[in-house]
Amino acid sequence: MSKALIIGAGGVASVVVHKCCQNSDVFEEICIASRTLSKCDALKEQVKKYKTKVTTAQVDADKTEEVIALIEKFKPDIVINVALPYQDLTIMDACLATKVDYLDTANYEPLDTAKFEYKWQWAYRERFEKAGITAVLGCGFDPGVTGVFTAYALKHYFDEIHTIDILDANAGDHGYPFATNFNPEINIREVTAKGSYFENGQFIETEPMEIKRVYNFPEIGEKDMYLLHHEEIESLALNVPGIKRIRFFMTFSERYLTHLRVLQNVGMTSIGPIDFEGHKIVPLQFLKAVLPDPASLGPRTKGKTNIGCIYTGIKDGKEVQYYVYNVCDHEECYREVGSQAISYTTGVPAMIGAMMVLTGKWKKPGVYNVEEFDPDPFMNKLNECGLPWKETFKPEIVD
Amino acid sequence: MSKALIIGAGGVASVVVHKCCQNSDVFEEICIASRTLSKCDALKEQVKKYKTKVTTAQVDADKTEEVIALIEKFKPDIVINVALPYQDLTIMDACLATKVDYLDTANYEPLDTAKFEYKWQWAYRERFEKAGITAVLGCGFDPGVTGVFTAYALKHYFDEIHTIDILDANAGDHGYPFATNFNPEINIREVTAKGSYFENGQFIETEPMEIKRVYNFPEIGEKDMYLLHHEEIESLALNVPGIKRIRFFMTFSERYLTHLRVLQNVGMTSIGPIDFEGHKIVPLQFLKAVLPDPASLGPRTKGKTNIGCIYTGIKDGKEVQYYVYNVCDHEECYREVGSQAISYTTGVPAMIGAMMVLTGKWKKPGVYNVEEFDPDPFMNKLNECGLPWKETFKPEIVD
Repeated sequence: MSKALIIGAGGVASVVVHKCCQNSDVFEEICIASRTLSKCDALKEQVKKYKTKVTTAQVDADKTEEVIALIEKFKPDIVINVALPYQDLTIMDACLATKVDYLDTANYEPLDTAKFEYKWQWAYRERFEKAGITAVLGCGFDPGVTGVFTAYALKHYFDEIHTIDILDANAGDHGYPFATNFNPEINIREVTAKGSYFENGQFIETEPMEIKRVYNFPEIGEKDMYLLHHEEIESLALNVPGIKRIRFFMTFSERYLTHLRVLQNVGMTSIGPIDFEGHKIVPLQFLKAVLPDPASLGPRTKGKTNIGCIYTGIKDGKEVQYYVYNVCDHEECYREVGSQAISYTTGVPAMIGAMMVLTGKWKKPGVYNVEEFDPDPFMNKLNECGLPWKETFKPEIVD
Repeated sequence: MSKALIIGAGGVASVVVHKCCQNSDVFEEICIASRTLSKCDALKEQVKKYKTKVTTAQVDADKTEEVIALIEKFKPDIVINVALPYQDLTIMDACLATKVDYLDTANYEPLDTAKFEYKWQWAYRERFEKAGITAVLGCGFDPGVTGVFTAYALKHYFDEIHTIDILDANAGDHGYPFATNFNPEINIREVTAKGSYFENGQFIETEPMEIKRVYNFPEIGEKDMYLLHHEEIESLALNVPGIKRIRFFMTFSERYLTHLRVLQNVGMTSIGPIDFEGHKIVPLQFLKAVLPDPASLGPRTKGKTNIGCIYTGIKDGKEVQYYVYNVCDHEECYREVGSQAISYTTGVPAMIGAMMVLTGKWKKPGVYNVEEFDPDPFMNKLNECGLPWKETFKPEIVD
């Protein structure tokens, strides 16, 4: 019998909890833990119809000792970290101390910088090896499924992959002129940060939103995409032998970008407090209060996401093109687990990754990115667990 | 010797004060009065080098008795009203009670509606006639100079004017991504209000910003213009015999409109208070606090305005086209009187109108719009007093 400790009680955690409970043969018992116990209890209430035994706990994941104490009490076989990326290291430390397997969906990010890099977590490799435990890093959709797709492409269709384009498209419409899925500050940082891609052994930096591409996606149509830096480029560049170029593109609509730019222009995204009627008020905080509550978006978001990878390379001396992708419907996700596709596409792979570890398929001591494991059982579970994928050897755009 | 009471101490009042003092042969003595005495004193300080004797006074122009008391004390020959449009009627009442001539730059607007109509002020006609005093309504640039231009065109170049297009273009650039010259709520009301124009005896309503036109202006280049309702259409429709169509266009840049729309979309222009950190805060008030202070725009605004009228009609049986306009430079205005062109183009005509009344050229009992007087002496003074005009019989666009 397997026990999973799920740390976090937000949108992604909610999906992980639902999905674990739908797979109670593997997840016989789970504990939902977060800073706010009432959120955990509310989640527990949503899944009481399933066979999985659910408990809840209060934990401050910033504090390794608290996580250790919880692990020692609950005795899980794996810790699924869907808390904040700032907390990856304290939780990994707790797993080391207690010799429990670990899985997360987003790489560690120090609070004071906006750098997405694996170096802090990769530094745990030897210690995890010595402890005989497994850490699976970045097991959401992107990073996560994109790495599994890559391992799958390499295993079955290529002798050598030369280029990878990761395409993350969201055609969801919440019906508001403007709203953000989470903190608008993070959105703004995203679109104002320099982009980068990997080419011929090095990272090439671009101006923010410098490289734009229009792609006509299966099932969701034509979308504006912009090249961004994204964390899986770093691990894929190391783990795909012979790779020449890796790029990551994400959709942003003109409307979305215009709203963000205007709000930035007028100073509403500033985090410096201003004096207003005798109070110190942070414009960004006030903006968040005026914008629709992100929690209100789920039930009203229509449309689909399409996330996938286009590969080029060679097999038996011939050039091959391959596109593999998943299309996910916001409304269907919401009906199933009470979260829309953004959380769903992250939470389902986290559950599957944990299942891989618990069933021994992805069990090897050390710290790994997902493309370092056998993709086949994971690809099968994607089809079974709500994220079916499609493939074509004639993708629309290859450049 | 002539004495003028100037009510108001804002940007336009500042220009009126400077310009009266530059014409001390007519304006031997002025009194600057407003709710805030310190503003009046600050204005007085700016013009101490001139010969005109300047005094200041505190007055609440909402209260007719206070205005009457001030008039009885100062004994002006004319009251120049450059206070708020809401105060036109209380000041006219005070002029009636004391038998003093009256001039303003913007028509009365009740506090609770956004209707620009002359009916409330035209209702004073008989009383002003009986009192033997003159009221000149709307003597800024538009309305104001646009009416004088029309009287001038009719006097010299046309037997009959058939169409008038009033074109108000501001190519000023304050260097901020977005700022408003005044209350953004008023700006938003302007661009979200229905437009209207006069054609064949009636007013035709349009959707907000429905009619767009691009015009290549002398000295400022190509600008986007939108058809708006504007108050002088109402008086010109009555005062120009045989008129078939009158339209008013104003420039709005795409950038300006985009910023306004976004701020409206996200709720930052709402006047309904929201609960924020235990305080009731009106989003629009907070937005104003975040935006650049309108008072900071004057010294940094570069570029020019171009305001004028295109006329078509007949003279001696032949079709005639005529375009008359003024180009005004923001920086030159600021150097001369400490205000940019928006205030300058309103304040100079107000001074000239008062000069016309004081020198007997526009002295006739009753309530009048500017096009009902002889335009020639006014047109000469425009050239002398900082608003030189140019004319052409081959305007670029006539439609």
